[in-house]
Amino acid sequence: MKYVTYTTGSTPRVGILDADTVLDAGFDGDMVAFIEAGAPVGTTRPVPDAGLLAPLRPRTLRDFLAFEGHLKNAYRILGREIPAEWYDVPACYKGLPDTVIGPDEEIPWPSYSDQLDHELELAAVIGRPGRNIPADRAAEHIFGYTIWNDMSARDTQRRELPVGMGPGKAKDWDGSNVLGPCIVTADELDVTDLTLTVRVNGETWGSDTTANMHHTFATMIEYTSRDLTLRPGEVLGSGTAAGGSGLELDRWLSPGDLIEMEAEGIGVLRNRVGHKP
Amino acid sequence: MKYVTYTTGSTPRVGILDADTVLDAGFDGDMVAFIEAGAPVGTTRPVPDAGLLAPLRPRTLRDFLAFEGHLKNAYRILGREIPAEWYDVPACYKGLPDTVIGPDEEIPWPSYSDQLDHELELAAVIGRPGRNIPADRAAEHIFGYTIWNDMSARDTQRRELPVGMGPGKAKDWDGSNVLGPCIVTADELDVTDLTLTVRVNGETWGSDTTANMHHTFATMIEYTSRDLTLRPGEVLGSGTAAGGSGLELDRWLSPGDLIEMEAEGIGVLRNRVGHKP
Repeated sequence: MKYVTYTTGSTPRVGILDADTVLDAGFDGDMVAFIEAGAPVGTTRPVPDAGLLAPLRPRTLRDFLAFEGHLKNAYRILGREIPAEWYDVPACYKGLPDTVIGPDEEIPWPSYSDQLDHELELAAVIGRPGRNIPADRAAEHIFGYTIWNDMSARDTQRRELPVGMGPGKAKDWDGSNVLGPCIVTADELDVTDLTLTVRVNGETWGSDTTANMHHTFATMIEYTSRDLTLRPGEVLGSGTAAGGSGLELDRWLSPGDLIEMEAEGIGVLRNRVGHKP
Repeated sequence: MKYVTYTTGSTPRVGILDADTVLDAGFDGDMVAFIEAGAPVGTTRPVPDAGLLAPLRPRTLRDFLAFEGHLKNAYRILGREIPAEWYDVPACYKGLPDTVIGPDEEIPWPSYSDQLDHELELAAVIGRPGRNIPADRAAEHIFGYTIWNDMSARDTQRRELPVGMGPGKAKDWDGSNVLGPCIVTADELDVTDLTLTVRVNGETWGSDTTANMHHTFATMIEYTSRDLTLRPGEVLGSGTAAGGSGLELDRWLSPGDLIEMEAEGIGVLRNRVGHKP
């Protein structure tokens, strides 16, 4: 099933994406409440002129660093080695749930950056709550998957990185995270070998498969849930796929560029970059 | 005014701390809703046997690194220099709002750590929303202050740090963040020179004053709010005061230890450390 959050101008509602048609899911409440309630689809009805929003305002937003190819590319540019600890520790930073926007929204260019970059990621949405979840039971806790474009101000990131606290303003401005276009339930998607692609103005800049993830969603969930309760609506990002950022290619976005991120079985997340204020 | 969240066994409510007495604030909703509504105190009534909880479940939880003394101590132990960027960039990592517990609750010892540490911090609670807030207007956006004991698993932190994403499981387990005992409104507190002290089993381990903060709450808010909306109930921590952690002294907590954190004008945040599972 493909779930969306849609609006026709008033309060956003949960919908079902059926080819190009949006059906109202017959649920009163937002996507996180819907997931928490066990996705109780009620009486559905087609909604003409439904506009898609971000599928959810995540309860939390964690971003991992699972693709070795991305790291190799990025560290070569930075003239650094991949830290040995990376191979053992599925580390992540946390983003801000309130920064999330959805499909077709314009991505605001932050006034403090001259070097804006995209990051192509697959994101898992937690369904069933759990704590101390072993990797071989992790799949039971994943509701579904969506695409995450984790925008980054690289010049800011270079200044923040040496302090050792992870990215802050490099990733945090209103509209800096794009999720969508829909959440595909886990039963419909094989994430062991799923192709992810990013195009800028129609030109493919990068493509990779989740088969290349060194850390899997299962090991991320195992690590994250140690002595910690994971709750419905929490989002875990894969980190950037190889070639999924301009940093790796030394190619940079310009105002007005069209970014398209495609994930097999999920769809295309399409956004235009805004003009620098 | 000193605000608390209290319970007498049922739904938590907003209260006013009047010496040792808790008065119900006459508000239906949680602390974040109360702050968002402009702290509309209704008809008050004394509540016998009120138990204090964490004053709020923060909307977000950012932790900065403002005290040079703490950094000097910590980096000396680690055999490293303070990065030059630290002096210019008020960097932070983000904690998990759902991990927050309150006064007198037992702090769970994470099963995966052998080296547990406290961190003595002052925390500002955002009141009025804002975006692109200049430092000289930041005070208008602070509702009040509370004490934050940011517990840390130092052995885990050493493994996570080299990956460059900031702390993850070093700071994230159920009950790893303690806030309280109350929120003192900004008009009643001079945070330009406020003494913070931590005692373990009655012995003073560290004491510092906010006069030694290199980054102030005003500059943190200015940096954080660039192109980003700050909302009521977001919490910004000062980072550890000098001597506010055992790391700096090479002294370590044991199961059953009593941690008391005192901030002038706010009170004492008291918690016992649990036993390792």
